[in-house]
Amino acid sequence: MPDPSPHEFDLALNQVPRTGRPAVRDLHLAEEWRIGGGLNGGFLLAQIGQALRSTLTADQHPDPLALSAYYLSASAAGPASVETTVLRRGRSMSTAQASLMQADDAGRPVERIRALATYGDLVGLPDDVRTSASPPQLPPPQDCLGAELVPPDFRASAPFLDRFELRLDPATAGWAKGEPSGQGEIRGWFRLPDGREPDPLLLLLAVDALPPVTFDLGMFGWAPTLELTVHVRAAPAPGWLLVRHATRNFAGGLLEEDAEVWDSGGRLVAQSRQLARAPRPR
Amino acid sequence: MPDPSPHEFDLALNQVPRTGRPAVRDLHLAEEWRIGGGLNGGFLLAQIGQALRSTLTADQHPDPLALSAYYLSASAAGPASVETTVLRRGRSMSTAQASLMQADDAGRPVERIRALATYGDLVGLPDDVRTSASPPQLPPPQDCLGAELVPPDFRASAPFLDRFELRLDPATAGWAKGEPSGQGEIRGWFRLPDGREPDPLLLLLAVDALPPVTFDLGMFGWAPTLELTVHVRAAPAPGWLLVRHATRNFAGGLLEEDAEVWDSGGRLVAQSRQLARAPRPR
Repeated sequence: MPDPSPHEFDLALNQVPRTGRPAVRDLHLAEEWRIGGGLNGGFLLAQIGQALRSTLTADQHPDPLALSAYYLSASAAGPASVETTVLRRGRSMSTAQASLMQADDAGRPVERIRALATYGDLVGLPDDVRTSASPPQLPPPQDCLGAELVPPDFRASAPFLDRFELRLDPATAGWAKGEPSGQGEIRGWFRLPDGREPDPLLLLLAVDALPPVTFDLGMFGWAPTLELTVHVRAAPAPGWLLVRHATRNFAGGLLEEDAEVWDSGGRLVAQSRQLARAPRPR
Repeated sequence: MPDPSPHEFDLALNQVPRTGRPAVRDLHLAEEWRIGGGLNGGFLLAQIGQALRSTLTADQHPDPLALSAYYLSASAAGPASVETTVLRRGRSMSTAQASLMQADDAGRPVERIRALATYGDLVGLPDDVRTSASPPQLPPPQDCLGAELVPPDFRASAPFLDRFELRLDPATAGWAKGEPSGQGEIRGWFRLPDGREPDPLLLLLAVDALPPVTFDLGMFGWAPTLELTVHVRAAPAPGWLLVRHATRNFAGGLLEEDAEVWDSGGRLVAQSRQLARAPRPR
């Protein structure tokens, strides 16, 4: 039977339960999702989210509410697996653990990410919304800046950047022409290029897909994630997502990076915070 | 030999490695740390933080940098244990997992909290501080509001409230006289009453010791924590801690609660975010 979904993101999230060990799902981390020396961290979150979704859907808890990932080693393109363990099955929520594994050069198992997550049913939540936060004001996508921001030599090493459309607010993209604002903020529109609409799994990608907020501080090195926790608060409406990254506490060689994701209906659908290692001064 | 530390908080964090199973530490959750139907969540975080500290100090990584806790069931006063498993030992950081366990009424083991954490050495971090956040402005502790805010009948069920000194900014304490601001913010000064100065473990308590921010929204029910992640960014200076709790996204029966902890030197020493279940309407 042909795969009912032709969308690239869904194909990339294809996972196969291992024969005799259904808690282990085998998958392939495609080169297309590589950025620099490793796979994008948000894409890896989505893989973990997918495995947990498969595990917990039977419990009527298909959606991530909270997911915390601790990055142990850099993932590489190639075979991988996610093993899940359910810690608690509740009436309205379940909590589970997941490990993303690969093999090292000698074939020994090596853990890439350890995660904890609480899943539930976003559609079944009460419909009260008293959010006091308001979405950032950006020019419309057609007036924002796209792929032309990325230096060609960097783009060649980052096929990940071709997996989605990103339109950055010019007010937070000065770093691309050597004029970082110093505010520690990057805002932009995000969507998949092939018409695949957002869902909770895509939000896991969206919270870690933008350029690191350190670019806006004038630091262009790599800022590896140590830990990332995301709260998914609603199933997103179709259309563009609005993503805002910001940092307020750059100190001691570490920084926090907060992400907010707003859907086309103006709802704050996801919030994340990561602790990252600051880029080394050059 | 007498215990060199007479401080209540340190005595409460006494843990004994189990004979033959040093990765398991036995402890007693004292009734004094109870609030309502369970033990305070920040106190439980500190117990987990203590067990991880004991595990990782030999690796020169005594301090929590990031700690994520998923609350599985309500803890009760009485015997408990924390089991730790080191996932990765690195040069500057190590990552580990911890489980807080108790026995149920039938003596069967039941998990209270599953946690992941990355530990390092706060004193050894680079001393650059470029934090752009600024501490909230509060009246001095003597002009803030203390224990008189708590209704006597509630106090009787919450011995936890006698474990620390809390002085709330009158501007965010209107709820105590039936006039919640509706802003979703609570600010106050925090310290231990017996002169025990703050350290990274106390920060784990401080991020979840204030009244729930929902009080300032006029909701006085219980708001149980589902998940809490804290980043400890510096060893705090002696003196009062300044704690600010806020929420911006109350929706779907859930809310996020952010906490910031500032030390007496004006340094942002800890940031936390929790996902909590909203109090049921009355």
